[in-house]
Amino acid sequence: MAAATTRIDAKKLQEFAAAAFVKAGFPADDARVAARVLVATDLRGTDSHGITNLGGYVRGGLRGDINLHPKPRMHSVARSTATLDGDRGLGFVIGHRAMQDAIRRAKKTGAGFVAVRNSTHFGAASYYAMMALEHDMVGFALSNGPARQVAPGTARAALGTNPLAVAAPAGARAPYVLDMSTCVAADGRIVVARRDGTPIPAGWIIDEQGNPVTDPVEALKMTGRGGPLPLGGTPEHGVYKGFGLGVLVDILSSLLSGSCADILWPNVGRTARNAADHFFGALRIDSFLPAAGFKQAMDGMIEAFEALPTLPGAARVAIAGSREAGTARDREASGVPLRDSVVQELKDLAAELGIAFDLC
Amino acid sequence: MAAATTRIDAKKLQEFAAAAFVKAGFPADDARVAARVLVATDLRGTDSHGITNLGGYVRGGLRGDINLHPKPRMHSVARSTATLDGDRGLGFVIGHRAMQDAIRRAKKTGAGFVAVRNSTHFGAASYYAMMALEHDMVGFALSNGPARQVAPGTARAALGTNPLAVAAPAGARAPYVLDMSTCVAADGRIVVARRDGTPIPAGWIIDEQGNPVTDPVEALKMTGRGGPLPLGGTPEHGVYKGFGLGVLVDILSSLLSGSCADILWPNVGRTARNAADHFFGALRIDSFLPAAGFKQAMDGMIEAFEALPTLPGAARVAIAGSREAGTARDREASGVPLRDSVVQELKDLAAELGIAFDLC
Repeated sequence: MAAATTRIDAKKLQEFAAAAFVKAGFPADDARVAARVLVATDLRGTDSHGITNLGGYVRGGLRGDINLHPKPRMHSVARSTATLDGDRGLGFVIGHRAMQDAIRRAKKTGAGFVAVRNSTHFGAASYYAMMALEHDMVGFALSNGPARQVAPGTARAALGTNPLAVAAPAGARAPYVLDMSTCVAADGRIVVARRDGTPIPAGWIIDEQGNPVTDPVEALKMTGRGGPLPLGGTPEHGVYKGFGLGVLVDILSSLLSGSCADILWPNVGRTARNAADHFFGALRIDSFLPAAGFKQAMDGMIEAFEALPTLPGAARVAIAGSREAGTARDREASGVPLRDSVVQELKDLAAELGIAFDLC
Repeated sequence: MAAATTRIDAKKLQEFAAAAFVKAGFPADDARVAARVLVATDLRGTDSHGITNLGGYVRGGLRGDINLHPKPRMHSVARSTATLDGDRGLGFVIGHRAMQDAIRRAKKTGAGFVAVRNSTHFGAASYYAMMALEHDMVGFALSNGPARQVAPGTARAALGTNPLAVAAPAGARAPYVLDMSTCVAADGRIVVARRDGTPIPAGWIIDEQGNPVTDPVEALKMTGRGGPLPLGGTPEHGVYKGFGLGVLVDILSSLLSGSCADILWPNVGRTARNAADHFFGALRIDSFLPAAGFKQAMDGMIEAFEALPTLPGAARVAIAGSREAGTARDREASGVPLRDSVVQELKDLAAELGIAFDLC
C-alpha cells in the first residue's frame, strides 16, 4: 500500500521550513538552523522526525509552548564540561548550540560534554552526534522526553523513548551513525504500520494490563497506562538492559543538567508540553591517535562486517548509518519524497501562516 | 538443584587470590589489585566473573599469555584524554590504572577518557565504572574480547560479548550500576543453566545454520560458527540496536586505542589468547552542578521507580545495581558462598602452585 509521493528539492523544502519558522516569530538564524536539521533528517530517510513535524514545532512556537526568544544560560566551571539552560527554546537551536560548545571544548582538551535542561524536542538525535564528524570527533547526543516507555514488570510509562545517538567518522566509507530509542521500537515504526494498515509485532507495546498491543492505531493512543517496552522486551531477553540504558539517558540529560526538579517522576510525567533535556558529547580522535589511522581502521571494520557470509534470505550485514547514507545520496540528487498527505499538511500550514507554498 | 556451598570470608578469599597471583610471578601490588577486583565481583553476586576464574588468570600468567611484568605506555597530547598500551599485562591492573588516570583528568577538566589497547581480560566492567563513585563522578568502562557475538543475519562471530558499564552515585540509596554485555545473554547465564540442567530460551544463541540452541552445554561450545545474538535478538525486536552498541564498544576500545591493527577482523578473530581492549571514562558531577543535588535527585528517581505499581506476579521495579548492592551487604557480613566444585578448583590451584589453602 505504497502511498503516492512527490519528490521535493531539499533546498526548496529547507527554505519553506525556514520561512514557516520565521513567520511563526522565530529569529531568522534560529529558523535556518531548525530547517536545516529537519530537512537533513528527511534526507537520511528518518521521515518520522523530519518535515512531517514542521507544523508541530511552528504551532508550538505560536502557542507559547516553545519560547520564541529564549535566553539560554551556559554554566561552566571546568574546561571540558558545561550545563546549558535552554529557557524552553526550540530544541534544534538549543541542541545545535550545546553540541557546538561540546565540540569547541573537545578541540581544546580532547573531550567536551554539555548537559542541557529546559529545552524542547530536538528532532533526530543523530543530527547533533553527526556534527562531530567534520571535526574528526566521535559525537554523542541523548535526549529524554515525555514519559512513554514502561518500566519492566509494570504497565506504567516511566521514561521517554529516550534516544541515544553516536557518530564516528570513517575514511572512504559512510560514517558509523547509531541513532536508537531505548525502546524495542519507537513511534516511527508504529506510524509506518498504521499508514500501511499492518499489525505490529507482539513485544513492542503493552496495554494497561500488560498484554501485547498489535493494532498500531491502539498502540499510538497509549498515554501513560501501557506503552512501549524497553529494548530486550522481556526479563528473559534482556529488558533490564534496555531499561538500564533508558535510565542512563535520563541520568545524563535530566539529572546531570539539573532539570530533575522540573520532572515530576514517573507517576506524574512531565509538566510542560514538548519539554526535553539533552546531553551532548564530543571526543577528539587525534587526542587519542592520528585520525587518519582511525578512519582507515573504520573502513576495514565496515568492510569485514559486510564480507560476512549471511544466512539464507538475510540482507548483507550493514553498519549503523550506512543505509541512511545511501538514502541521503539518493534524496540529495532526486529530492525528498513526500507523501500526498504530508504535502497537504504543508499546504495547510502555509495557508494558516499566510506564506507562499511553491514546493510542487 | 542448588549445589552445596560454603561461605568464605571475603578478606580471606582476597588474601588467597593475592597469594596465588604472587606465586604465579605477578608483582605484589598488581596481585593485590587483581585480588580486590575479583572478590569485589563475587561480593556483588557476579559469580561468573569472580574468583571462579582465578585459575584462568594465574595459569595465563604462568603460560605467558599474560605478561607478568608489563611496561604500560601512556600517550597523551590533551588534558582530558589519553591512550594506554597495556603491554599484554593483567587486565585488572591495566584497567585499574587507566580508570585512575581518567578520574585524575576529570578532577582537572571535568571529563577524563582513556582508551586502552593490548590489555587482557579485566573481569567485570562494573568494577572500573564504580571506581568513579567515591569521587562523585559518573564512571564508564567498556571492553571488547574474543569474537563470539554473531552479526545480525549471519551465524558468524563478529564481536566479543562487548560489555559496557556505567555507574552514577546516589545519596542514601545504592548507586546506579549498569553492567551489561551487548548480547541478549552473556555466558554467565548460560553457565548457570548448564549447572542447573535447564534449557536456555530460544533467542539467546544460534548454531551455524542460524537455528536456536537451547542446550546450554552446546551453547557454550560455539566457536565462531554460531554464537550469542546481539541484544534485541531479531530484526523485528531491535537486533540492530544491540549490534550497534556492540560495534560502539569496539570503536571506542579497539579503534580509538589504536589496537585495530592487532585485530584481524571478524572472519579471523583475535590472534592472542585473553586479548582485550578497553575504554574508560569519568565525568565529574560538580563540574555540571552541585553533586549533593544530583545525588538527591538520584534517590528521588530510584524511589519513584520503586513505587510504580507492578503487574501481577512481577517483582518491584529495581534500578540497575540495586540487587547487586543488596547481595554485597549480605556477603560482606556472611561471606561469599562458593560452590563445592569451585572450592575444589581453588584447592587444586593451591596444590599446583604450592601455596596454603586455608579458606575452609
